[in-house]
Amino acid sequence: MAAKKIAGVLGATGSVGQRFILLLADHPDFELRVLGASHRSAGKKYIDAVNWKQTDLLPEFATDIVVSECKADQFSECDIVFSGLDADYAGAIEKKFVEAGLAVVSNAKNYRRESDVPLVVPIVNPEHLDLISAKIEKSGKRGFIVCISNCSTAGLVAPLKPLVEKFGPIDALTTTTLQAISGAGFSPGVPGIDILDNIIPYIGGEEDKMEWETKKILGKISQDRSQIDLLSPEEIKVSAQCNRVAVSDGHTECISLRFKNRPAPALEDVKQCLREYVCDAYKLGCHSAPKQTIHLLEQNDRPQPRLDRNRDAGYGVSVGRVREDPVLDFKMVVLSHNTVIGAAGAGILIAEILLAKKLI
Amino acid sequence: MAAKKIAGVLGATGSVGQRFILLLADHPDFELRVLGASHRSAGKKYIDAVNWKQTDLLPEFATDIVVSECKADQFSECDIVFSGLDADYAGAIEKKFVEAGLAVVSNAKNYRRESDVPLVVPIVNPEHLDLISAKIEKSGKRGFIVCISNCSTAGLVAPLKPLVEKFGPIDALTTTTLQAISGAGFSPGVPGIDILDNIIPYIGGEEDKMEWETKKILGKISQDRSQIDLLSPEEIKVSAQCNRVAVSDGHTECISLRFKNRPAPALEDVKQCLREYVCDAYKLGCHSAPKQTIHLLEQNDRPQPRLDRNRDAGYGVSVGRVREDPVLDFKMVVLSHNTVIGAAGAGILIAEILLAKKLI
Amino acid sequence: MAAKKIAGVLGATGSVGQRFILLLADHPDFELRVLGASHRSAGKKYIDAVNWKQTDLLPEFATDIVVSECKADQFSECDIVFSGLDADYAGAIEKKFVEAGLAVVSNAKNYRRESDVPLVVPIVNPEHLDLISAKIEKSGKRGFIVCISNCSTAGLVAPLKPLVEKFGPIDALTTTTLQAISGAGFSPGVPGIDILDNIIPYIGGEEDKMEWETKKILGKISQDRSQIDLLSPEEIKVSAQCNRVAVSDGHTECISLRFKNRPAPALEDVKQCLREYVCDAYKLGCHSAPKQTIHLLEQNDRPQPRLDRNRDAGYGVSVGRVREDPVLDFKMVVLSHNTVIGAAGAGILIAEILLAKKLI
Amino acid sequence: MAAKKIAGVLGATGSVGQRFILLLADHPDFELRVLGASHRSAGKKYIDAVNWKQTDLLPEFATDIVVSECKADQFSECDIVFSGLDADYAGAIEKKFVEAGLAVVSNAKNYRRESDVPLVVPIVNPEHLDLISAKIEKSGKRGFIVCISNCSTAGLVAPLKPLVEKFGPIDALTTTTLQAISGAGFSPGVPGIDILDNIIPYIGGEEDKMEWETKKILGKISQDRSQIDLLSPEEIKVSAQCNRVAVSDGHTECISLRFKNRPAPALEDVKQCLREYVCDAYKLGCHSAPKQTIHLLEQNDRPQPRLDRNRDAGYGVSVGRVREDPVLDFKMVVLSHNTVIGAAGAGILIAEILLAKKLI
Repeated sequence: MAAKKIAGVLGATGSVGQRFILLLADHPDFELRVLGASHRSAGKKYIDAVNWKQTDLLPEFATDIVVSECKADQFSECDIVFSGLDADYAGAIEKKFVEAGLAVVSNAKNYRRESDVPLVVPIVNPEHLDLISAKIEKSGKRGFIVCISNCSTAGLVAPLKPLVEKFGPIDALTTTTLQAISGAGFSPGVPGIDILDNIIPYIGGEEDKMEWETKKILGKISQDRSQIDLLSPEEIKVSAQCNRVAVSDGHTECISLRFKNRPAPALEDVKQCLREYVCDAYKLGCHSAPKQTIHLLEQNDRPQPRLDRNRDAGYGVSVGRVREDPVLDFKMVVLSHNTVIGAAGAGILIAEILLAKKLI
Repeated sequence: MAAKKIAGVLGATGSVGQRFILLLADHPDFELRVLGASHRSAGKKYIDAVNWKQTDLLPEFATDIVVSECKADQFSECDIVFSGLDADYAGAIEKKFVEAGLAVVSNAKNYRRESDVPLVVPIVNPEHLDLISAKIEKSGKRGFIVCISNCSTAGLVAPLKPLVEKFGPIDALTTTTLQAISGAGFSPGVPGIDILDNIIPYIGGEEDKMEWETKKILGKISQDRSQIDLLSPEEIKVSAQCNRVAVSDGHTECISLRFKNRPAPALEDVKQCLREYVCDAYKLGCHSAPKQTIHLLEQNDRPQPRLDRNRDAGYGVSVGRVREDPVLDFKMVVLSHNTVIGAAGAGILIAEILLAKKLI
Repeated sequence: MAAKKIAGVLGATGSVGQRFILLLADHPDFELRVLGASHRSAGKKYIDAVNWKQTDLLPEFATDIVVSECKADQFSECDIVFSGLDADYAGAIEKKFVEAGLAVVSNAKNYRRESDVPLVVPIVNPEHLDLISAKIEKSGKRGFIVCISNCSTAGLVAPLKPLVEKFGPIDALTTTTLQAISGAGFSPGVPGIDILDNIIPYIGGEEDKMEWETKKILGKISQDRSQIDLLSPEEIKVSAQCNRVAVSDGHTECISLRFKNRPAPALEDVKQCLREYVCDAYKLGCHSAPKQTIHLLEQNDRPQPRLDRNRDAGYGVSVGRVREDPVLDFKMVVLSHNTVIGAAGAGILIAEILLAKKLI
Repeated sequence: MAAKKIAGVLGATGSVGQRFILLLADHPDFELRVLGASHRSAGKKYIDAVNWKQTDLLPEFATDIVVSECKADQFSECDIVFSGLDADYAGAIEKKFVEAGLAVVSNAKNYRRESDVPLVVPIVNPEHLDLISAKIEKSGKRGFIVCISNCSTAGLVAPLKPLVEKFGPIDALTTTTLQAISGAGFSPGVPGIDILDNIIPYIGGEEDKMEWETKKILGKISQDRSQIDLLSPEEIKVSAQCNRVAVSDGHTECISLRFKNRPAPALEDVKQCLREYVCDAYKLGCHSAPKQTIHLLEQNDRPQPRLDRNRDAGYGVSVGRVREDPVLDFKMVVLSHNTVIGAAGAGILIAEILLAKKLI
């Protein structure tokens, strides 16, 4: 049995950082040793620095860790660093970590659009991590960054991957999201008075992220293995409408899609394809990979966030109401756990894949 | 000043019936005299028969009205009868009322698909009421029925009407709804445990209603004035995805549409068209008609149900986030008050139009 | 008909300030002319300075008012100034306004505990305003301040007043509150993630406010008319437990009380006493005074915030479930609208009383 | 290692029954073999009979069990039967089961007030189960019933037990509850429109149950071991005010209490007493017994249902804000998981205690 890899967390007192800590408690592959936060928190014990707001208790192992500043030399022992930093800080800090030779898996948006940075939904496109091996081979340097996708993108692309593999390209895709408030963090996040008996039909930047990131995640590594080639606007049109609703965890998306190839596949074949999909992370034996990548639900009124968000510990995606669509080809409802497969959990699974691929 | 018309309400103790009563309190055109309910309630004073659950108090005038059975002879003095009956009862009862020469405005679904029955959203297609005058002329009989549309259809078609008038046919239309729970009535309606921290991505029959009713409401009276000619599937493709969310009143819809004519109109022209629309009910001077039919909101995060559902007392529809759509032509968010313009309120305004058109 | 008094609002862009503006729209006694806010907002049109978050639309009259700084010379034309300032600013600013001879009705907590400042719930203790006339007589100066009580105190003392008047002192009083989130303002107020599917059993400072303010509001003006004599801890014991719940508007309180005099009154007499209470503000003919001060509800499951908070436009208090208490004498449920009788609305009604008493 | 005891569940398709099934999945002591429900469900596979509405998936083992009718002969192999029957049916059915020699642990209210039936909160008064051994000794018959307390009573008495043991009798006790909607079951339970943005200040029968059951649970077995002697009204006065709030799981209670002995203990001693309490079920080594019976929380704003209800898998009770009370001696906030320690979970732990005491 191999020794555990040493892990660190950047932005450890924030919403995403707290989730990283929970997910790393008793993890078979990683031992969390370094917690980085702002200079206000640095030097304090974690329990004194954090306003812990998770439904699970603060794991004991983390209680007494003295918080570090977010400087690379404080994390030099780390085999992997998970970043839950706000975008305001992530850009500069993560850059320095990479330059210092550290492996960073980041939830921030800053580097997602860099063509040579993999943007990975671990149950969808782990093959994009091959960019990293190519880079290491070429440069001889070990520092790199992998970006976690936007939370609502993760749910959207999960069912698309097997469909595209089996039935060929999707040329039109629409999604209307009903997103949970945990996705907005908690300082302050969404005010209670704005979300009680209400909907907010707007999430800043979210629609653009979904439309753009989908094209990268469904794209391919270039021939020279130097970058991801995005799907072009001619190849796929994507339209997103994003709403915030009174749900704590779990993003629901009503999606419609049209395949390029005619005739479109049969409804039952689409459903079977989703049912049968086994993600590579599971085949690789990754600890957190969902046993069932996509839970295809047949009851009319499912998936529901309160009932279905925790399937496979939040790593599985639920798809229901798959049916023909009068405008495009098919419509369906997709539910994904935004703080698991859509954020910190994705980061952990990405790290497990990196380990399985011997990239850390 | 004309004497008020005498009104009755069928299903007076139910959710829709209670709303009719509220809206008829102090109404300048109608005097509510007869309240009909099940035989369990008949013979009791209304206050003793009803489990009043409105946020406005039970109007004093209704308190002591003795509830009647839903029999036409009990309503013989009525110039207009508003029906809030459940579909299980509406079919047979309303039929008898019409045969007895009564004018019925019904919220039930039973007769909506009859080709010679107008299905009316009063801020959209009051011209369909001309079917009634044709019918009366032809048969010499005064009894007739007008159907109120499904609640979520009302919000959908409101912005479509002026757009079609100005820019020609819409050939593809999608809507994803986030519907309030008041639309489900309250016996029992949506269970609290099903909607707290949750979404139900299904409302029985709703998607089909929206897809079908849209084609009738946007259709035209036939040349012989005997029926409504529906838009055909070739003329317009409509796709609806319906969700129930934790909102008390106000249906939010994320819609996308494509015009048949190329090139599509400019974004600013679409917005101007919505802004300028004045519904016929307002031009006719109807008491409840909204001063502003469509409130075009420019703030990014509007409309919101809690803040915008009561514009023009719930008779105005709010439209926001009008923008270009990568898949169809335009997308936007529409908010309508489901118990006002989507149910009882629509019934009242239809009756006002019938009065203005001297059909009652 | 007298000319309207000129009014100003301090803290006009905040949650309480917005409510003052709504309540002053079309007010028969007051004309709102001056809006004061922070220097960031000063110089802008109100519509450009405010993030309007009320369920009623911003009144047109206020749209174009240019926001002033909160300096007394900007308000010199005002007969009355309503303050919705945060406690951080209210202390210094309101002091200067008073020194400049202005009449201030404040929602801030800063001066509530000054013995010579009336702390007034307008449906309960308007007689405390006589301190003002005494002060003016004595000093010859017109500047003064009246404090609005804490929102949850207002609901608590409303039923106590008539009970004490009729049955003599209450010597023990407990209240457990279920308070609405609108009471916390909105920058940021209560975070959504903290209140969805949750209760927060703590509101900073609230319990102490309730326990203390009750003793002042139920106290008497001293013989020399210079101050309010608080009830002593020997006269009344008060215990409050405060909770924040997922309700937008309306504070619910479960209270119990014991009278000093033995035997305690009969249950039916207690109820009758509450039913019959007519507040002085109504007798004075004040515009906003509730026709029915206390709505005594007999249904088992009332009052409920969503159904009952708007009785008498939020100026009436609802009391239900009055029954004997095994530990003290009686228990009951009290509902009051926290932003009306518990905040801005109270300020308006206090000003109406001041006007009726010719103090402005 | 002993063979597992065979278990059955009555009312298996209902809300409480579903919870029993979840808790019995993979239980080390019990093997669930028989599921009883109404004749409508009898004969069907469980998965076809149930409308499963738990956040955990239906355990595989239960899927294919064919549902039985609730007749004793169908349960003859059972060592223990858990009843989640509605009160309408529980009385007659459970009686027959006991007569047939079966051991029944029931969540129904029907037999709670029988003086010779133990009413047990397993972390509080498992010693009352000694009534059972006395009964068996005396009658030689093995059939018996043990009642689970009302859900809100369980949370109330948990902190009282150690306090009474250490500081002597409590002579006055008040509680105001904020109860979760899951306690109302789901057919239909609390309607969504009644609980969204609302509170219902009434739960039928609940206050009386809390006031009565507390006196039994804190009572003692009579000298002749034939019954429980209730505390008399002279010994303890209990007053409850019950509210339903928009929380899915977890009852919050604001309680106050006064000790009989003077002087009252010191605040710190009260807190220490709660902290140190170890329930007998834990000492007996019961599988589900909480490691920490009472979690004494020191943060001002805790316990909160969403964050704290799952401590010790819902078997631990959280107590916070312990402080002196101006009216009685101490006040505090208690949170307990209503479907675990307040219902099905209590039943499981009672059965574990019965097993440890060799009563099954």
